[in-house]
Amino acid sequence: MAKTKAFRPKARRPRGFEDRSAHVLRAERALVSAASAVYEQWGFEPLETPAFEYADALGKFLPDEERPNEGVFAMQDDDDQWMALRYDLTAPLARFAAENFQDLAKPFRRYQFGEVWRNEKPGPGRFRQFVQCDADSVGAPGPAADAEMIALASEVMGSAGLSEGEYVIRVNDRRLLDGVLERLGDAASEKRLRVLRAIDKMDRLGLEGVELLLGEGRKDESGDFTEGAGLDADQRRHVLSFIEAGQVDDALTGAGRNAEVLKRLTQAFGDTDAGKLAVADLETITSVLDVLGKSDNWTLDTSVVRGLGYYTGPVFEAELLAEAQYEDGSPIRFGSVGGGGRYDDLVSRFTGQAVPATGFSFGVSRFAAALSALKRLDAAKADPLVIIVAAEKDRMADYFALAADLRGAGLRAEAFIGGGNMGKQLKYADRRDADFAVIIGSDEREAGEAQIKDLKLGARLAAEITDNKAWREDQPAQFTVSRDQIVSAIKARLTGG
Amino acid sequence: MAKTKAFRPKARRPRGFEDRSAHVLRAERALVSAASAVYEQWGFEPLETPAFEYADALGKFLPDEERPNEGVFAMQDDDDQWMALRYDLTAPLARFAAENFQDLAKPFRRYQFGEVWRNEKPGPGRFRQFVQCDADSVGAPGPAADAEMIALASEVMGSAGLSEGEYVIRVNDRRLLDGVLERLGDAASEKRLRVLRAIDKMDRLGLEGVELLLGEGRKDESGDFTEGAGLDADQRRHVLSFIEAGQVDDALTGAGRNAEVLKRLTQAFGDTDAGKLAVADLETITSVLDVLGKSDNWTLDTSVVRGLGYYTGPVFEAELLAEAQYEDGSPIRFGSVGGGGRYDDLVSRFTGQAVPATGFSFGVSRFAAALSALKRLDAAKADPLVIIVAAEKDRMADYFALAADLRGAGLRAEAFIGGGNMGKQLKYADRRDADFAVIIGSDEREAGEAQIKDLKLGARLAAEITDNKAWREDQPAQFTVSRDQIVSAIKARLTGG
Repeated sequence: MAKTKAFRPKARRPRGFEDRSAHVLRAERALVSAASAVYEQWGFEPLETPAFEYADALGKFLPDEERPNEGVFAMQDDDDQWMALRYDLTAPLARFAAENFQDLAKPFRRYQFGEVWRNEKPGPGRFRQFVQCDADSVGAPGPAADAEMIALASEVMGSAGLSEGEYVIRVNDRRLLDGVLERLGDAASEKRLRVLRAIDKMDRLGLEGVELLLGEGRKDESGDFTEGAGLDADQRRHVLSFIEAGQVDDALTGAGRNAEVLKRLTQAFGDTDAGKLAVADLETITSVLDVLGKSDNWTLDTSVVRGLGYYTGPVFEAELLAEAQYEDGSPIRFGSVGGGGRYDDLVSRFTGQAVPATGFSFGVSRFAAALSALKRLDAAKADPLVIIVAAEKDRMADYFALAADLRGAGLRAEAFIGGGNMGKQLKYADRRDADFAVIIGSDEREAGEAQIKDLKLGARLAAEITDNKAWREDQPAQFTVSRDQIVSAIKARLTGG
Repeated sequence: MAKTKAFRPKARRPRGFEDRSAHVLRAERALVSAASAVYEQWGFEPLETPAFEYADALGKFLPDEERPNEGVFAMQDDDDQWMALRYDLTAPLARFAAENFQDLAKPFRRYQFGEVWRNEKPGPGRFRQFVQCDADSVGAPGPAADAEMIALASEVMGSAGLSEGEYVIRVNDRRLLDGVLERLGDAASEKRLRVLRAIDKMDRLGLEGVELLLGEGRKDESGDFTEGAGLDADQRRHVLSFIEAGQVDDALTGAGRNAEVLKRLTQAFGDTDAGKLAVADLETITSVLDVLGKSDNWTLDTSVVRGLGYYTGPVFEAELLAEAQYEDGSPIRFGSVGGGGRYDDLVSRFTGQAVPATGFSFGVSRFAAALSALKRLDAAKADPLVIIVAAEKDRMADYFALAADLRGAGLRAEAFIGGGNMGKQLKYADRRDADFAVIIGSDEREAGEAQIKDLKLGARLAAEITDNKAWREDQPAQFTVSRDQIVSAIKARLTGG
């Protein structure tokens, strides 16, 4: 192997990509599992599309993308066709639905979770690969299908362990903004998208930042300049006043709040064609969700836009209201963990045939991280772990057999297969956050016994200041049992402690 | 949207990539879930590395790759560094272990499942993206760790619903082949790999094909030429006779077979340094697996090589022996569904420090497809599905509320949100393979009733030739219940039928 030793690559991840370890993955999987169970119950079927799509099939719907092939990871295949890694799960769904349209039962209800990739500038907490979890109904016209999506998103939030009042689904309609643009007398596609993208940044940039993006443009902290929509001062005020018009006092909540917002929207937008359609659909959504008892789980909010360019009607955003605390007691706010909306033109891009569709997407990594900070997702905990010390290296088969017995009793168990003496092995057990270590050296073996170390109790005793002697003697952190009592002794500790 | 309508892309997948639908995914997920539960129980922790690695970190260990960047999907990042999509889960693990070596508890036991990508010529059933599921112990010297891997693979096969005798783990050691090459007086790295790759193709090409690859090379059906190892006729016979020497009569099984093979291996390979080490390790593996009662689940087999270039010791291959039948009664054989081995130099590529490691990888798609054909993986079945016909389009909220009631009783349920009359909706229910359809039109609504269609029973009745009148009247395929009896009536049908 002299050849490979000559060159020694540096072990490092590509920029903007992360390795995810056990505690993160357990939380993410518990979330995906809870969401999938909800989707299955609601009649959605799983689908997995490949990571690659032809670039022309993906289309250019990413926010902030002005240049071709920016924003995605693209490469040319052997036959010179451009492929790109998917940037979301919706564009591939549209391709799939168009490709298989005749064979699909419509509405086609599918859910999908998986990685998506964005070729963006990496930054702290900003990754170029992340996991999304989506449900969509393709071939579903009408606002009742959108109302179902909002109810579904609410159900997923509940299945993740959130109570009412800890989250809200914010709902707007792209056509309200179309109504605004209609009045501006200018609805060129590119300018329209820039206005939408500007409003979408309200959360992050505030009214002033949004006004810059509606006008000439804005330079960010790093010096990068984003070109604006080019509206003049009157037009800018016009757009901003519409956004403000749709927002009411936070004291109003639930059905009352939504009724009030609907009334104001009718006044503000009811005189344009697109605005009228939007308000009528929002009324239907409101009444369906009222019947379903979901009034307190969602709210109308005209500042919601969603950045992606393909939405055509109602748009949704799932926001966490529950707060966790930093160690100094200051609140951690989580904000948006998902969103979606209606995209009636995405399948017809391929087929020319109108195929109305609506869907919802959760950002799994961000949502799971928030739930972990909030101490939800009980299913994310692993079973107790037992490490069997390899005291006699030529007795590995016996240790493996003991591990199998412990597993049979519902525990996680492994025999130590690394190198090192007993001290190193016990340190390994600590670092693995094991609950118990079992030691059978030659003395124990000859006596038909085993020593058991209760590692969690040991750590607690070591941390305690008061010396409660009686209790210590009653609950020793290390004790000896006969070989055939190991499993039952450990089980007794776990149920008793 | 005039701009997007002007260009109409064709809806198609990139060549060699597949969409996976519900029945395939349910089987794959049941398998991954069963395997993950085993890995967790055995003390392995989940890890997910990103899809991309730097190309130099991945190294060139793919079988059949002679040219740089062939075999992988590679692209240059903004800073001109070459990244590639991972072709397996082992090379990224080695990068991760090297990058985090100081912080990891050793042995580092991790499992990972996820997509891998190979930029190969697509063909029927040959995909460029597929799912692997791996478990590895990094920092684990000695054959007991390899024996544990074999026992673990056997346990996964069992957790997937296979009985003893329906599978076997075939085991060989790379150093036996090294011993062969030692005697050939030529162990240049490239030639060594070509010899190993040639033997690895025994299953597919037979002795004659292997002999061509040991010599000048071989042209395949498509006319592609694979360069051979360049051995002369004597050397070729030498290699082939060694392979044959390690194979014994199939009548010998279990511990007896392995003891016989070990004896013959000692005679054949015991006189070279590498051969001696290999035989000693295989003896330890044999004795550990005997104690664990696994003798019937594995076998020594000198034709096993594993194509990847990074193995340094014992190598494993999991083979399905169970057969399914094609419709004409002829047997479907599945062959290898996974493999692995010891790779002691993969982490030291980065660090220079010796880090012994061993692991096992399952090909999820191939394994799950085989299990489906064998009718295993009971967990892959979905719960019964109820479709609520949208008879009155302005009553969607009521239908959604009924769907929620049915879900509360453990059923999958959805109200129809597509377009179309009742006939179309019932056809949809059939195509979705639904168990029941519930119809509440204006008549039923006014009477406080619902019609329930038992779709599975209806299909059975329609298919039956004999007209069992009494039974039909007792079990009508369509019946009327009061509104508050819908859930209990459906549940009664499911438990009674």
